[in-house]
Amino acid sequence: MPYRAPVSETCFLLDHVVGFSAVQATERFAEATSDTVQAVLTEAGKMCEEVMAPVQRNGDLHPAVLENGVVRCSPGYAEAYRAIAEGGWVAITADPEYGGMGLPLTVATAVNEMMSGACLALQLNPLLTQGQIEALEHHADEEMKALYLPRLISGEWAGTMNLTEPQAGSDVGALSSRATDNGDGTYAVTGQKIYISWGDNDFVENICHLVLARLPDAPAGTKGISLFMVPKFIPDENGNPGVANSLKVVSLEHKMGLHGSPTCVMSYEGATGWMVGEPGGGMKAMFTMMNNARLGVGGEGVGAAEGAYQHALAFANERKQGKNPYDTIIGHADVRRMLATMKAEIFTARAIALDCAVAIDMGRATGEAEWQARAAFLTPIAKAFGTDTGCEVSSMGVQVHGGMGYVEESGAAQYYRDVRVTAIYEGTNGIQAMDMVGRKLMDGGEVAGRLLDEIEAEAEAAKAALPDLAEAVWQAAETLRETTEWLVARPMPERFGTAVPYLRAFARVLGGHYHLRAAMADRDGAHGRLARFYITRLLPEHTGLLAHVRAEDAALMAISPDDLAA
Amino acid sequence: MPYRAPVSETCFLLDHVVGFSAVQATERFAEATSDTVQAVLTEAGKMCEEVMAPVQRNGDLHPAVLENGVVRCSPGYAEAYRAIAEGGWVAITADPEYGGMGLPLTVATAVNEMMSGACLALQLNPLLTQGQIEALEHHADEEMKALYLPRLISGEWAGTMNLTEPQAGSDVGALSSRATDNGDGTYAVTGQKIYISWGDNDFVENICHLVLARLPDAPAGTKGISLFMVPKFIPDENGNPGVANSLKVVSLEHKMGLHGSPTCVMSYEGATGWMVGEPGGGMKAMFTMMNNARLGVGGEGVGAAEGAYQHALAFANERKQGKNPYDTIIGHADVRRMLATMKAEIFTARAIALDCAVAIDMGRATGEAEWQARAAFLTPIAKAFGTDTGCEVSSMGVQVHGGMGYVEESGAAQYYRDVRVTAIYEGTNGIQAMDMVGRKLMDGGEVAGRLLDEIEAEAEAAKAALPDLAEAVWQAAETLRETTEWLVARPMPERFGTAVPYLRAFARVLGGHYHLRAAMADRDGAHGRLARFYITRLLPEHTGLLAHVRAEDAALMAISPDDLAA
Repeated sequence: MPYRAPVSETCFLLDHVVGFSAVQATERFAEATSDTVQAVLTEAGKMCEEVMAPVQRNGDLHPAVLENGVVRCSPGYAEAYRAIAEGGWVAITADPEYGGMGLPLTVATAVNEMMSGACLALQLNPLLTQGQIEALEHHADEEMKALYLPRLISGEWAGTMNLTEPQAGSDVGALSSRATDNGDGTYAVTGQKIYISWGDNDFVENICHLVLARLPDAPAGTKGISLFMVPKFIPDENGNPGVANSLKVVSLEHKMGLHGSPTCVMSYEGATGWMVGEPGGGMKAMFTMMNNARLGVGGEGVGAAEGAYQHALAFANERKQGKNPYDTIIGHADVRRMLATMKAEIFTARAIALDCAVAIDMGRATGEAEWQARAAFLTPIAKAFGTDTGCEVSSMGVQVHGGMGYVEESGAAQYYRDVRVTAIYEGTNGIQAMDMVGRKLMDGGEVAGRLLDEIEAEAEAAKAALPDLAEAVWQAAETLRETTEWLVARPMPERFGTAVPYLRAFARVLGGHYHLRAAMADRDGAHGRLARFYITRLLPEHTGLLAHVRAEDAALMAISPDDLAA
Repeated sequence: MPYRAPVSETCFLLDHVVGFSAVQATERFAEATSDTVQAVLTEAGKMCEEVMAPVQRNGDLHPAVLENGVVRCSPGYAEAYRAIAEGGWVAITADPEYGGMGLPLTVATAVNEMMSGACLALQLNPLLTQGQIEALEHHADEEMKALYLPRLISGEWAGTMNLTEPQAGSDVGALSSRATDNGDGTYAVTGQKIYISWGDNDFVENICHLVLARLPDAPAGTKGISLFMVPKFIPDENGNPGVANSLKVVSLEHKMGLHGSPTCVMSYEGATGWMVGEPGGGMKAMFTMMNNARLGVGGEGVGAAEGAYQHALAFANERKQGKNPYDTIIGHADVRRMLATMKAEIFTARAIALDCAVAIDMGRATGEAEWQARAAFLTPIAKAFGTDTGCEVSSMGVQVHGGMGYVEESGAAQYYRDVRVTAIYEGTNGIQAMDMVGRKLMDGGEVAGRLLDEIEAEAEAAKAALPDLAEAVWQAAETLRETTEWLVARPMPERFGTAVPYLRAFARVLGGHYHLRAAMADRDGAHGRLARFYITRLLPEHTGLLAHVRAEDAALMAISPDDLAA
């Protein structure tokens, strides 16, 4: 399964579509010159192609297993992980003080996407460590930082996040794991956690579990939750892994995909933990971790889509069919439509993810609230549209293969199965959409309006060069503006029933905007042609979605559970 | 995994939505009174609930295996198949002269759908036999009919269809299996066939393979293909299975789903066969078999969607979340939206399938070309939209389950994996759409226009009672009419690039029509509320789809293979 890292496409997006030059112009990221970034992406891409992609099928064919309480990983994963760690790809945004590269998140987003395209199940491991590093950078005290950060950043140790319990899924506040003060600065953590991705592995020295739990007298709900660092092996005085902690992997889930990634049920039985941040501050710290993890998961969707696309394209170029013995199915209009759709959607989802990353970097570099608000607005879109694109593109990948797509040997099915969970974790895509129409429109639609101003102004400016495409994008933005204004006037609960189509419509319009920018930069080239395809064929989906949003909410909640059971 | 057969919903559709009374008014189907049909559906539904549904997970957990050249099926499949055969459910439309019930295809469509919802992998077996019975009824000579039909109809023997070869997938004309005349009325059939569903099993006495092959001097392409009956065991003089034929199962495919259904690579090595129909008439006979099989596969999509929906609904009603300990996730607006969408889409897909079946029955009963043309027009829509609905609804079923949906134990993933192939076989959904914009619009859009006349006339009549819904349906039909007229004026090759969105838009508008009929019959009931949901929220999708259709085709084919590889 050959995988080619999309380095030049990513560089095109950085230079012409998502305004990365603003990041490069900041003092903080002045070293991230285009040459440097291209060199970094090229190096990472090579590792993805040569080391990660070759083990992608291994994970599916030889899943991680639990043997005598220890997880044994898929063949080749240990070596591939070593290459990730040694290349410094675990944490390229991390603080140079602790060994990180201090590069912009935009670059990390691109590298994470490439790793996901090469081997999603394995990439999940460093993505989780990245989230943990970020949580510790923001919330841990100096002692904890000094002990954990260098080892996490180097990849010697790996991180996990432990939220979910059997009775507490999306409703995290319902969790019941508890922690009692040992009186020596440590806590005894007890409880069972489920769906712990990479809860154990056989290729790092230590595994650092961040666990949400309640102190004895903590209030109910999310306010009573604190965060604890619970390492698999308790570090000795030199910071080396010492005695085993009182925790264990109870079982692994049998999942539809990502068989190479062990999803653990974890049991903590008075395990020794250290509090991260303040008592009751667990959710805040966890949100630090989850917030950018959402962008990371969106990028997983994009990466999986890119992998599935390349795989389908190769098949369409090779599969002979037709009168002429050299004819292949890429000559069929419907196959061409599927491939063009896949490519146009990947472009859109990638641009949204990178634009979101640029906003996060700008927020960090400048401290400006406007950039931070833009980042917060784009994050749920990047997560939901990126992962929906992963699911849809991988489904088209199966379809391009015809009957062979359903046979596992072709590999098309693995993309389809692997990526499906990304639409669920880090908050289901429905929850992302509710975040968007809820918290992210709480400003009365100000941030959304600024984005739409930008889209309309650029479309206006593009009218001379590309009149029909620019007009279509302008019109779409205007329709979206009207619906946004209508939506923010609705009471909150009524927004939730149309949150998903609203988010998708916003992504559609953003896609028109980014494709138009690409077309302006490459009018007679491949991007110009792809933009025409997207804007004339895919962008119109927004009209139906926005009509859906404006439909009377009563029509939804009037359908009772009894009606649904009828 | 409890499954409830949708008997009363189906009866509602027959009585109020798809005009089944016209079938009942024909002489041929006069015995199919509403009471009889309800009794048949109730009996079949009971079998589906009590016998088939309980073995659904078995097939996934304990796939069919090949042992010493013999297929061993999943636990419980033999007993469940026996119940299907003994109930007479293999072939309820078949000629009573040979033991069939002679019931309308509409009833068979409903029963097949229920069997698919209960256990898709097993249902595929009798569906294939049904297709074979139909091919033999139309193309076999009396001797062959007398030998095979009673045994196929009773379910003692099962049928398969053998088209695909490694180098000949959708391009059936490229096949190279050959048949030579033995001079005694039999032929020696040699070749390898792939993707043969239920190519072998351990619960019927004999398996009857219909095999496409070429005579020695046959012309190239589809005209040179003949059809042969090649039984696993050659019938002796009493019609009992005799000596083993020269054929074997080489291997089973490892598929993404439908693990209970053995998909075989078959090898024929001078196997004894009997020609069905005329030399060179193979494709014609195969199309007889495939034509209604397309409707059957569409029904598989509907059935799988219904199973996935019931499963997700049960979860949503049970899964506690929220402040009140009795709150379950069905109270969340986004979960309600997903469930309502699933139900509204199943209604649409089921109505299309049943309406198509009604047209086929009317064509058979009256011989009128108009009914036959309507049936031919609706068939690709029923196939593609039914199976797309299966894929989309089962995906929403996973999503409703959240993280549990990705864990195989929940069963949600099985629906998602199992149904995926239905969008591929019997002609991929892209091929269905090309059939629609190609052959089915070759009349200049006459049949389509008649359907749209009917939709608009009824919407007109409904305006007094349901003004907003009726107006929306009327307008959608009119937009579709304009696009249809635009499309038929385009040269054929240019139609193919927009075939898929056109087919989907047509299904969307048909859905509006059927939902409006349901709302007229049940204005203050569940159907009325669901119709409002569909027409205000889902029907608007047609506008974007039709804009896609009318986009310049040049935008598609201008995207070269090099552009796609860029």
